[in-house]
Amino acid sequence: MYYGADYYPEHWPKERWAEDARLMKEANINVVRLAEFAWAKLEPAEGHYDFSWLDEAIDILGKEGIKAVIGTPTATPPKWLVDKYPDIYMKDRYGHVRGFGSRRHYCYNSPVYHEYTKRIVSKIAKRYGVNENVIAWQIDNEFGCQDTGQCYCENCQLAFREWLKERYGSLENLNRAWGTVFWSQTYNDWDEIILPYYTVCEDSDHRFHGHNPGLLLDFYRFSSDSVVSYQKLQVDLIREFASQPITHNLMGHFPEIDYFKLGKDLDFVSWDNYPRNQWRIDGSDFREVAMAHDLMRGVKDKGFWVMEQQSGPCGWSVMGRTPKPGQLRLWTYQAVAHGAEAIVYFRWRTCAFGAEEYWYGILDHDGIPRRRYGEVQKTGKELQAISDIIVGSRVVSETAIIKSYDNLWSHRIQPHSTGFDYNTLLMSYYKGLINNNINTDVISIDHDLDRYKVVFMPAFNLVKEDIIEKIEEYVKNGGNLVLTFRSGSRNWDNSMRTDTLPGGFRKLAGIEVEEFDSLNQDCEGITGIMGDGTAITWCDILKPNGAGVLAVYASGYYRGSAAITVNTFGKGKVYYVGCGLDQKSLDKLIESIAGEAEVGQVLPWKTEGVEAVKKEKDGKPYIMVLNHNPVPVIVDTGGNYTDLLTGGKINNKLELEPYGVSVLV
Amino acid sequence: MYYGADYYPEHWPKERWAEDARLMKEANINVVRLAEFAWAKLEPAEGHYDFSWLDEAIDILGKEGIKAVIGTPTATPPKWLVDKYPDIYMKDRYGHVRGFGSRRHYCYNSPVYHEYTKRIVSKIAKRYGVNENVIAWQIDNEFGCQDTGQCYCENCQLAFREWLKERYGSLENLNRAWGTVFWSQTYNDWDEIILPYYTVCEDSDHRFHGHNPGLLLDFYRFSSDSVVSYQKLQVDLIREFASQPITHNLMGHFPEIDYFKLGKDLDFVSWDNYPRNQWRIDGSDFREVAMAHDLMRGVKDKGFWVMEQQSGPCGWSVMGRTPKPGQLRLWTYQAVAHGAEAIVYFRWRTCAFGAEEYWYGILDHDGIPRRRYGEVQKTGKELQAISDIIVGSRVVSETAIIKSYDNLWSHRIQPHSTGFDYNTLLMSYYKGLINNNINTDVISIDHDLDRYKVVFMPAFNLVKEDIIEKIEEYVKNGGNLVLTFRSGSRNWDNSMRTDTLPGGFRKLAGIEVEEFDSLNQDCEGITGIMGDGTAITWCDILKPNGAGVLAVYASGYYRGSAAITVNTFGKGKVYYVGCGLDQKSLDKLIESIAGEAEVGQVLPWKTEGVEAVKKEKDGKPYIMVLNHNPVPVIVDTGGNYTDLLTGGKINNKLELEPYGVSVLV
Amino acid sequence: MYYGADYYPEHWPKERWAEDARLMKEANINVVRLAEFAWAKLEPAEGHYDFSWLDEAIDILGKEGIKAVIGTPTATPPKWLVDKYPDIYMKDRYGHVRGFGSRRHYCYNSPVYHEYTKRIVSKIAKRYGVNENVIAWQIDNEFGCQDTGQCYCENCQLAFREWLKERYGSLENLNRAWGTVFWSQTYNDWDEIILPYYTVCEDSDHRFHGHNPGLLLDFYRFSSDSVVSYQKLQVDLIREFASQPITHNLMGHFPEIDYFKLGKDLDFVSWDNYPRNQWRIDGSDFREVAMAHDLMRGVKDKGFWVMEQQSGPCGWSVMGRTPKPGQLRLWTYQAVAHGAEAIVYFRWRTCAFGAEEYWYGILDHDGIPRRRYGEVQKTGKELQAISDIIVGSRVVSETAIIKSYDNLWSHRIQPHSTGFDYNTLLMSYYKGLINNNINTDVISIDHDLDRYKVVFMPAFNLVKEDIIEKIEEYVKNGGNLVLTFRSGSRNWDNSMRTDTLPGGFRKLAGIEVEEFDSLNQDCEGITGIMGDGTAITWCDILKPNGAGVLAVYASGYYRGSAAITVNTFGKGKVYYVGCGLDQKSLDKLIESIAGEAEVGQVLPWKTEGVEAVKKEKDGKPYIMVLNHNPVPVIVDTGGNYTDLLTGGKINNKLELEPYGVSVLV
Repeated sequence: MYYGADYYPEHWPKERWAEDARLMKEANINVVRLAEFAWAKLEPAEGHYDFSWLDEAIDILGKEGIKAVIGTPTATPPKWLVDKYPDIYMKDRYGHVRGFGSRRHYCYNSPVYHEYTKRIVSKIAKRYGVNENVIAWQIDNEFGCQDTGQCYCENCQLAFREWLKERYGSLENLNRAWGTVFWSQTYNDWDEIILPYYTVCEDSDHRFHGHNPGLLLDFYRFSSDSVVSYQKLQVDLIREFASQPITHNLMGHFPEIDYFKLGKDLDFVSWDNYPRNQWRIDGSDFREVAMAHDLMRGVKDKGFWVMEQQSGPCGWSVMGRTPKPGQLRLWTYQAVAHGAEAIVYFRWRTCAFGAEEYWYGILDHDGIPRRRYGEVQKTGKELQAISDIIVGSRVVSETAIIKSYDNLWSHRIQPHSTGFDYNTLLMSYYKGLINNNINTDVISIDHDLDRYKVVFMPAFNLVKEDIIEKIEEYVKNGGNLVLTFRSGSRNWDNSMRTDTLPGGFRKLAGIEVEEFDSLNQDCEGITGIMGDGTAITWCDILKPNGAGVLAVYASGYYRGSAAITVNTFGKGKVYYVGCGLDQKSLDKLIESIAGEAEVGQVLPWKTEGVEAVKKEKDGKPYIMVLNHNPVPVIVDTGGNYTDLLTGGKINNKLELEPYGVSVLV
Repeated sequence: MYYGADYYPEHWPKERWAEDARLMKEANINVVRLAEFAWAKLEPAEGHYDFSWLDEAIDILGKEGIKAVIGTPTATPPKWLVDKYPDIYMKDRYGHVRGFGSRRHYCYNSPVYHEYTKRIVSKIAKRYGVNENVIAWQIDNEFGCQDTGQCYCENCQLAFREWLKERYGSLENLNRAWGTVFWSQTYNDWDEIILPYYTVCEDSDHRFHGHNPGLLLDFYRFSSDSVVSYQKLQVDLIREFASQPITHNLMGHFPEIDYFKLGKDLDFVSWDNYPRNQWRIDGSDFREVAMAHDLMRGVKDKGFWVMEQQSGPCGWSVMGRTPKPGQLRLWTYQAVAHGAEAIVYFRWRTCAFGAEEYWYGILDHDGIPRRRYGEVQKTGKELQAISDIIVGSRVVSETAIIKSYDNLWSHRIQPHSTGFDYNTLLMSYYKGLINNNINTDVISIDHDLDRYKVVFMPAFNLVKEDIIEKIEEYVKNGGNLVLTFRSGSRNWDNSMRTDTLPGGFRKLAGIEVEEFDSLNQDCEGITGIMGDGTAITWCDILKPNGAGVLAVYASGYYRGSAAITVNTFGKGKVYYVGCGLDQKSLDKLIESIAGEAEVGQVLPWKTEGVEAVKKEKDGKPYIMVLNHNPVPVIVDTGGNYTDLLTGGKINNKLELEPYGVSVLV
Repeated sequence: MYYGADYYPEHWPKERWAEDARLMKEANINVVRLAEFAWAKLEPAEGHYDFSWLDEAIDILGKEGIKAVIGTPTATPPKWLVDKYPDIYMKDRYGHVRGFGSRRHYCYNSPVYHEYTKRIVSKIAKRYGVNENVIAWQIDNEFGCQDTGQCYCENCQLAFREWLKERYGSLENLNRAWGTVFWSQTYNDWDEIILPYYTVCEDSDHRFHGHNPGLLLDFYRFSSDSVVSYQKLQVDLIREFASQPITHNLMGHFPEIDYFKLGKDLDFVSWDNYPRNQWRIDGSDFREVAMAHDLMRGVKDKGFWVMEQQSGPCGWSVMGRTPKPGQLRLWTYQAVAHGAEAIVYFRWRTCAFGAEEYWYGILDHDGIPRRRYGEVQKTGKELQAISDIIVGSRVVSETAIIKSYDNLWSHRIQPHSTGFDYNTLLMSYYKGLINNNINTDVISIDHDLDRYKVVFMPAFNLVKEDIIEKIEEYVKNGGNLVLTFRSGSRNWDNSMRTDTLPGGFRKLAGIEVEEFDSLNQDCEGITGIMGDGTAITWCDILKPNGAGVLAVYASGYYRGSAAITVNTFGKGKVYYVGCGLDQKSLDKLIESIAGEAEVGQVLPWKTEGVEAVKKEKDGKPYIMVLNHNPVPVIVDTGGNYTDLLTGGKINNKLELEPYGVSVLV
């Protein structure tokens, strides 16, 4: 398997390169990513190209058996280019130019930037499309990062109108879909249509601007599509000149790009994983990282790369805490457990200048191997020993959570309760599964559902007929579906449905929503099959219409009303969860639903902070067990296994050191 | 009496209109407001008018006996208009255009917008000025809402200079009044005068900008006057063509427009009442709503309409909690108690598109009558049964609180203590009255004072000679006046007085302020006729100069100094309250002052959360009792009554259900 | 000694001036500062000068024996000037003009403003350069205040490029120093170089923008140098026409100007001291004020003036609490203790208009002497009685803290831990000294070190060879040096050093930093010579390389590793403190280090809230003891003294009233 580091030879004297290659090889590294920010080195002035340094670096690395992934350098247009064409810059909603000095200072819809992108990408593709040491391509770098998902420049204004023409065909359709009759916003001409610029309504935290929700959702879609198109422009060019597979480094839970669409044009997905960076100073919950891995696997329903794996303390102006001994290894195994088939650490050696001086790599600024280097070296050796069961393996999953970017955006525009966040709701269901030792896939609504015993579809508020039919078909054939409050309430254009809630899912769920109560930060009581618990965020007051009642409210004016129901539909069942739940109640509810559906658990008992993932290669199963605790634990395996890493025999009791891992067969 | 809903036929298919009218009639509705955002429907392109749909809607409603209030649609200029004349838009203090996409995207001082306003308003006025089904006019909608009270565009710059010429006559006067000698800000030419744009001094929460306080107060006044003028332009036009009375829908405690001035040009006042919207997610204190009603009544010293009464959960991106059973009725009775003579619920049916998709009406998106419809229906029936004592009645009030927008603005510019807010101080006195079962009026300083036993005039810091004379006259004739810290400290131009504090009120109060201490978030002890209490926000250290001492400080370096005094002046008394007080102490102080002045209480004992208002129609008194608690209460009425709603006899003990109401005679 | 007030005769009628002068004289005032904001009075229209009023004021004051300091009025360019040349205004990073209406609305690099500065300054200098009543000059007013330290206008853009040419000589040097190869930021032309404008990376609190750290540090330096140059332009002009000494009023801990550089061109330093203003509503720690005084003394290593000493409650829109009886006197004595040789109170009489209406002076708006006037009067009398030991005295100090603005700026750009602030770290060491009754100097790295027994050099991360040599020389000769975490980690151009930490100080400290852990808001345990304590902010994990271990970590994965070390180097010692410490532990550590180095304590025992400063005049020592507590205290003097203020004999026990002071000999 590929195991490597992100490497910037251009930041260091050539004299050091051979030493770097030697140290990499000793650390069991066999791949590096190169050049993704090096436009100014490759084309120092317009039309003057210099590939010599990159040729030489690839050559030196190649001699040690280290292959290269080449990044196209379009995340960093050089100063000579943006000075010549200042309309390449993005603008914000106030009209401010978002200028030079960091990175990603370009608009996806700039025609002139498209032109220069083609020039540099074809030059590079031609040069390295046939190089035996170059084994893959990365397009650009982290689309959308640093708030570059959306732009308000004149080029975007024009492109948005074209995108809308394509979508709606006529202004009549657009005016109807958006409901522009509200507040006299009717458009008489395509050229009248705006981007959601600054308005009088803008509130102090800049979240709400009073814009039409239909326009806002289309602006989200348009912006995401602009990224997809820009990536495709590069993908097509590279395919013309090169045969290596193509990827882009995604960003896990990042909300502004529809990764399912972005992934379609790629050969494989990779992503950048920082469990403890400047924004997660004290570390994120391991389950958040796990879900990000599962989403990344779900984008193309196959194994992926981690193209940037945290390898030291990191941050821009401030750093998060230093990874403790064992954590780099643990994070690597976690990635592998969830489907990573290659690990690339960011970065080889910490840069001594620029905005990422504090983003530490495997080596410190002084280039001397220390603890982290040793851990990377050891982990690499271990992984190579079991690489045959990693590459080409799959996660054994009988459940799926449906993630929809259209729904995510709709909820971001109008979250309907201060306590609501779509990603957080999905995460609470994900946690409920992992807390029950149940593997899951995170998939698009376009994905085949038949292989799953239970499908979770939380807060899927935008619906259209083909989706309803697909879901009905799935349940009719014996599937189990879990819906929640806010499901089926809107049309795909983000207007509200005018049938009774849960709108498109009313028949499936066998209920009607009689009233609702947006709890915001309040809570109410609930009681039922999960025992006594707490309803949070939102309460739908349900009128069963064929469905059975699993839980009722225990407080509020709607005390005694149905809160959670189950409906038999064809051979399957439809659960409707009318409120948010405290995590413990949700865990119990999921345990009950999964038990009913005979979903298998990876291990029979749960140990707090321990994750277990069941995988399979060529029909042979194995289990990866990960201890995320800073203390040793004993895990009840419910049977006898062999640990592939140590060769030790496990008789029901698996001892794991702090941050320890096992691979059980 | 009029009882109705805000209705938007243009949002729904014509086929539904008759059904809506029928359902309205069944709900005892007899009036709707129409068309206040419908410019683009009435004039889809410049000069092309279409009134047919509105004619038809009025006609269909009229057939069910439902009358119409027509709103002029100037809150929403269509896109064709602002594209043709972009200088219609407001600008912010940085020069950013505040663009299209929500509503109120126009400047009150735009000459071209004045022109187009005249065209559309006269067209509408001519058409419906003689329609028997049209019984009133609403000008525009919620002037100032969504931060549209102040604008920094070039038209405002020019208009401000003209306004100042009018006010000051000469630059010498202006420079003297503002004290521009400070920091070399002397103006040599009218064209040099600025709006309070962005300066180097702007602090991070954008509250302070280092501008001259005189200029700032005049900018507030100018901005408010601009709204008043813009409204008058419409009022005059409508009066030319129509005979129905004219109103505008105000916004209760909204601080940026002088409602006393705005109300002068109207035939009657109406306002929009949302006790639990997105900004008051967990509900506002019922006393805040009560005071807003009293202020709205005070604007023209007569009964008013509620033009938008909350009828469901509401919010833009997030919603507040759903009104509980009984609350719609309770809020309606509260409005009536404080002087509302007509109730119009917002809105008839929840809109399925646009920025207010989550602003629920009487009917949900699906148009099916449910609990809230039933409550509106029941309440309407009850009210019609007692409408003769509602319409033309008056609140029996022996006390008044003086509210001054000039003072409000002066205090917003320089609140002098982080704990100080003018409206909050007034509210604490209002609460002190309501907590003692005492009715009050909220009035302008121009209002006749003689009818009141006690007048509260908190933090009236801007003074001029005629005001001082008026107040002295009132007290001399036997009135009781309550002043507080910060009173009389400034001239009307917002400069500081250079006589000893309390400046203009020194003679009246019979004290001098020796020192003061701005407590901000700290507090000090106080002791006196209210027992032991807490001084908050501010402490004036008083030197009695004829006045008697009612309380002294109990801590701080000024321990033992006078804090609250009373002075006999002519036949009356002047109380000076030198500090902020905890609510309990303030309640006791007010009890004492009111007792001394023989002010009547509506009920003899106070029940927490229960409000009692004494009213009178044709000399016959009645008492409305409102239970704002979510639990039943027993209220001690101190006598025997009949409940007009139930016909029941009340012998000293009135039982009220949760959110229950009674009308006692 | 000079004792006075800031006086604005132009704000008051001429008829009052003589009365003011009389009252001043009675208050023992003998100096006023005049005219620093009076440009529009001195030159009401371009080229029309009017000095008559100022002549007259100086004359009236002079007759009472009151001398004048004249301020050049360049902090407030008149409207006629900025209207004629709008490019005088500053701009912000978004390109917004920072307009008229407050003060300091000019850019230091505006060529046209330089021209007009020369005209007005030479006019004034010529007129008052020979006036016997004018005894000093103040340049402008509070450079940098109200966020005017940095500007983004086109003139600054051009000036920055020139400044960089001067600094780097060639673009190659600049590109190398900044590391522009990172993210393709290489500059091919001087005209390509930007100011750190708004980028896509700007975070929500506007602290981080993704800019190159080398560019950012140079922008800080350039901005500071621009102020220094602008001041020098005025200093040179005044020296041409006048013989009086020249000062500028600095602002204590203000971080954006290198005060050591700014002070070089001045004859003496003065500063503005507000212990309790609007931003320090409940009062700042007296030790923060003490350190500011010591820094101000350190700027020129000699006595200074307080040019604005708080004399009442103050604030712009809100006020801080009122100084309690005794505090004005206490603050004055504290200033004198730390080196002030003249005190000027701000302001004489509270202004009745303009943005500082709430910035109270000695007299209130009404001009009547009250408590504060009395306290000023009494204090003045006392001080004149001992003025011979104040003027020309020095603080006896055996320790120094090195403050570096370059390091401050580097840390502001990248504080590396959310818990870190350079000034706060220095303050913690300062508090450790004052808590041990040890005097200290606060000095620049350019200062002579030989006179100090211990030098503290916290977080000195930027280093260059001459600094390292100087420090090594100091220690070699017997000095004691205290270094901390982050020391020696960067080059002077703000890039990271690529040798092992602590980089330039590795040899001196006798350790290597094996790893580090950025704690942010977390903490870990530590144990050693200070007992058991808490490590905060940051932990360096040290590998002694000759040094002895004074403390080790008591928790974390690095438990047991060295945290604090001491290394013998030549005749001296180098302490390395690898972590932040709770104040109590730091106090003990400093006690131990100072004890080891035989540093003298001013008093033998510490009384909480009591400050003791040892001074010397003509070889004769005296001690000033200041009680900052609101309660009386008894201080153990450890010997017998005479109190110069009362003449009383002190036998080991000194009784001090609340806010009381003593001068012991």
